[in-house]
Amino acid sequence: MHSSIRPLLLPLLLTATIAIATHGATAPSEETDGNWIRPARDYASTRFSSLAQITPQSVKQLGVKATFSTGYTRGHEAAPLVVNGTMFIVTPFPDILYALDLTKPGLPIKWKYDPKVVSSAQGVACCDVVNRGASYADGVVVYNTLDNRTVAVDANSGQLRWSATLGDISRGETMTMAPLIVKDKVLVGNSGGEMGVRGWLTALDLKSGAIKWRAYSTGPDKDVLIGPRFKPYYAAEKGQDLGIHTWPGDGWKQGGGSVWGWVSYDPSSNLVYYGTSNPGPWNAEQRPGDNKWTSGTFARDADTGEAVWFYQAAPHDLWDYDGVNENVLVDLNINGQMRKTMLKADRNGYLYVIDRTNGSLISADPFVYVTSTMGIDMKTGRPNENKEKTPSVGNTVRNVCPAAPGGKDWQPTAYSPHTGYLYIPGNNLCMDYEGMEANYIAGTPYVGANVKMYPGPGGNRGEFMAWDPVARKKVWSIKESFPVWSGVVATASDVAFYGTMDGWFKAVNAKTGEQLWRFKVGSGIVGQPVTYLGPDGKQYVAVLAGVGGWSGAILAGSLDARDGTAALGMVNAMADLKQVTTKGGMLYVFGLP
Amino acid sequence: MHSSIRPLLLPLLLTATIAIATHGATAPSEETDGNWIRPARDYASTRFSSLAQITPQSVKQLGVKATFSTGYTRGHEAAPLVVNGTMFIVTPFPDILYALDLTKPGLPIKWKYDPKVVSSAQGVACCDVVNRGASYADGVVVYNTLDNRTVAVDANSGQLRWSATLGDISRGETMTMAPLIVKDKVLVGNSGGEMGVRGWLTALDLKSGAIKWRAYSTGPDKDVLIGPRFKPYYAAEKGQDLGIHTWPGDGWKQGGGSVWGWVSYDPSSNLVYYGTSNPGPWNAEQRPGDNKWTSGTFARDADTGEAVWFYQAAPHDLWDYDGVNENVLVDLNINGQMRKTMLKADRNGYLYVIDRTNGSLISADPFVYVTSTMGIDMKTGRPNENKEKTPSVGNTVRNVCPAAPGGKDWQPTAYSPHTGYLYIPGNNLCMDYEGMEANYIAGTPYVGANVKMYPGPGGNRGEFMAWDPVARKKVWSIKESFPVWSGVVATASDVAFYGTMDGWFKAVNAKTGEQLWRFKVGSGIVGQPVTYLGPDGKQYVAVLAGVGGWSGAILAGSLDARDGTAALGMVNAMADLKQVTTKGGMLYVFGLP
Repeated sequence: MHSSIRPLLLPLLLTATIAIATHGATAPSEETDGNWIRPARDYASTRFSSLAQITPQSVKQLGVKATFSTGYTRGHEAAPLVVNGTMFIVTPFPDILYALDLTKPGLPIKWKYDPKVVSSAQGVACCDVVNRGASYADGVVVYNTLDNRTVAVDANSGQLRWSATLGDISRGETMTMAPLIVKDKVLVGNSGGEMGVRGWLTALDLKSGAIKWRAYSTGPDKDVLIGPRFKPYYAAEKGQDLGIHTWPGDGWKQGGGSVWGWVSYDPSSNLVYYGTSNPGPWNAEQRPGDNKWTSGTFARDADTGEAVWFYQAAPHDLWDYDGVNENVLVDLNINGQMRKTMLKADRNGYLYVIDRTNGSLISADPFVYVTSTMGIDMKTGRPNENKEKTPSVGNTVRNVCPAAPGGKDWQPTAYSPHTGYLYIPGNNLCMDYEGMEANYIAGTPYVGANVKMYPGPGGNRGEFMAWDPVARKKVWSIKESFPVWSGVVATASDVAFYGTMDGWFKAVNAKTGEQLWRFKVGSGIVGQPVTYLGPDGKQYVAVLAGVGGWSGAILAGSLDARDGTAALGMVNAMADLKQVTTKGGMLYVFGLP
Repeated sequence: MHSSIRPLLLPLLLTATIAIATHGATAPSEETDGNWIRPARDYASTRFSSLAQITPQSVKQLGVKATFSTGYTRGHEAAPLVVNGTMFIVTPFPDILYALDLTKPGLPIKWKYDPKVVSSAQGVACCDVVNRGASYADGVVVYNTLDNRTVAVDANSGQLRWSATLGDISRGETMTMAPLIVKDKVLVGNSGGEMGVRGWLTALDLKSGAIKWRAYSTGPDKDVLIGPRFKPYYAAEKGQDLGIHTWPGDGWKQGGGSVWGWVSYDPSSNLVYYGTSNPGPWNAEQRPGDNKWTSGTFARDADTGEAVWFYQAAPHDLWDYDGVNENVLVDLNINGQMRKTMLKADRNGYLYVIDRTNGSLISADPFVYVTSTMGIDMKTGRPNENKEKTPSVGNTVRNVCPAAPGGKDWQPTAYSPHTGYLYIPGNNLCMDYEGMEANYIAGTPYVGANVKMYPGPGGNRGEFMAWDPVARKKVWSIKESFPVWSGVVATASDVAFYGTMDGWFKAVNAKTGEQLWRFKVGSGIVGQPVTYLGPDGKQYVAVLAGVGGWSGAILAGSLDARDGTAALGMVNAMADLKQVTTKGGMLYVFGLP
């Protein structure tokens, strides 16, 4: 992936920061600089592209080269994939997969696959009926459906190769995350942290869809695939069957820890890295204990699923601080020593630099305004509690920052080995939070909290920033009116692209943050931009517009702005979204003249 | 409107053809070359723009300048309006009106008006839940809602000025047409020719919404506003209460003749011209007689509604040949004499040139392949019957051409005084047709026909053509795979724009038909393109994409392609539409670099 880096930049790479070359023997042959075969582009989840035709100078000439209406208007969170002249797009429910022919004018539809998703699955989706996209390998496009199937579709014909049913909507489960394909396995997880599900990550055989292993996030060690190889770094993760003993009674059975975010992979160690969601219910008084293994990060053997380490960013989570955000695997020069690290801009507001070989913290610094905790104890790895902000039933704590969607939610960062910066699409939201008694009824919301969110200090609800993980500081930032709920792509020409919920697709100088170009798309952006080479050899940038997701639920779900607690308190912070954008579902492809 | 015509073209205008200058004292002050205040642009319904910045040469550089998602994905048939820096867009059901600010980057929403249309209105819309747009005058934007209201919305504030309820969905009525505002009156009509409605045109007071007059299309002369001024040209239209006597029993009460198409206006005579829909039910054996005043054209006094003449293009209509198509009012030099004419590309497949002062035919020539009739008898004005094609109950007639949507349906033509050509977006569909007994139950379909449509000769289902109404011949034509279901705009620089159902927006040389430019929009086009001057003084072209309407019902209404008779037989002809486009609702604005 460094092949096209201009020589003059190489010294910078060698002395300051280096993204690991993760594409060894295991990378599919379609994993080229010009393709984009999985949402994060590479196994390391950098979302960095070596393409450099679109420069900080030429980007000002970007224009709309093609558009496509998906036909659906809920939140479009997926990344388009590009594989050798074909683009693959997954819509939100009903999870239609389109193959568009990039080799012909007007992006004609090659084929369309409709998984016929059960309509009632919409009723158990916590936060809009999104789909975060597909992954490609070995001639198949694999993705998840809201009604808990993983489907593998022949990339050429659009015919179903196999379908595996993995969860149950009657237990509140859905599937919204994008699979990661590692060698002969497809890694997928469930959603439903607000529905009393029991979370899991499952490995399926790429050829047949057969389950190879499943690792639960709660329960006995045997279910969590904790065995002799499990060597957590911190004391709190050591002990037998903590997935039971850190819960009251049978609480772990509906304890959340769902796996609806991102999975990264390091071929050199054969480990996968992914996070677990909040514990359930939100009302923490109902679940005394650390609630293992929720709100944290697992490292597992990709072949067997065996747990290798776990780090819990939010033990006994109080505020819906899921641990599902992407883990960006990069090797950094820390104090003169090259370290195999993992960068994680966590929901709890801290930017973690973690030694990915053992789960020990190298640094953890707030990247947004944080009141909910008082720094991270580097000895224990645990956040220092802020007693004033501990909610309880009948007691409303105010000004909890970040709010439940965290300093950053699922919307993925990008890391540029050129600049050494992590580009973070962030939120600046705080909340008032009151615990409530939650009753578990299978397949219904299991939350127990009364929440109202509002803008954090400064009034801007979002911020797009560059973070230097070595210097441990924010380099530049752009304030945005709404939470920045889109992904990011960074390129070798030092341009970074992201979108806003009010519909601007923006290009900025990756070194300075200077805005270089913008275009107003038809609907707010909560999707993931990608860049690729067209069959004409030219670089393009593509993104889905279609506002929605948790932050856009007021619009996508047609919620009433007068009920501020709707969408788990998000509506209170987003009442004006309806005035500035509209529902939609549109692909945009931009290119140079 | 001739101000920007280049001098060298003036001789052509004077010697060959002249479009009438209809904008005298009665034209609103906002009726400028740069605005577009009603769907047809002018009272004469020419859809001709004097703008000429975009030329046959420069059009090749057109690019997407702005887009906007309406948030709805049924058929988008409306024309955007432009009034002094604001664009107004009406969506299909639920008939949302947006005001977009053209003076600011990214077309921000100025305001949005939601008429809260009753959801059940969708159940009585025959052919998708479309809206053909709004009209502007005196600071208000006026349009119709599917649940039978005409609403006037303050153009600056988005506040409702008045709302008039005019029909009843429980009787099968809806409203889908675009109003025409003439002086102090708003002219609106009802839809429901397939639901056993009784058609009418109603004039409302522009200030208050009060009904000033209503003219029914069937029933006694007093209801039809037939009185001493009524002087039809042909014998068959002469007689008392023909709106009763040309029907069996009380058949006229649910006899159709709805007014869902276009209204034109000639200020020099103060007459309005509009057409009436098919009689109901389709099964003609249930309604012996001419079924006045359906499937024809009325001329009425704009102030009083008094009928002045009527011409019936399809007496005792056998094949759903509505008379609602637009009447284009132009003065033509016919055999050395300037005539006040009206051009009408009728559903029945004939291009009529009519003396609009008295309703007499000047010429009537087939502009598509016609088997249903055998020419027009110029003495009687009536089509010559083709006995072989007369359907009856239990007897299927085959190869009836044009099919029910006619040689052209509602999709409006444009007329260029530069070229003297009428630009026709046409259909090339034939059908097999069998009569069936229909039972009238209020608010339910009242059709009585089993229809299957298919492509006409040549296999192309659509054709975009230039027709010379003086020479009475087709000048050039472009075959299109699908019916050309979009409107047309023609400009003073001899460029004509139209869209296709598979999503290509095209510019052609208005003189030669040479394709100059095309862009694939996100969804098939069934809307009406317009052109205007932006606040920057530059010419733009705008169109809504969003496939649907009768021809696109298979997609917009998610109909099963296996039932060919669905959508009144249209589905049989359109099964492949789903393979080439998707549902959508997107505004596109194109401009030069």
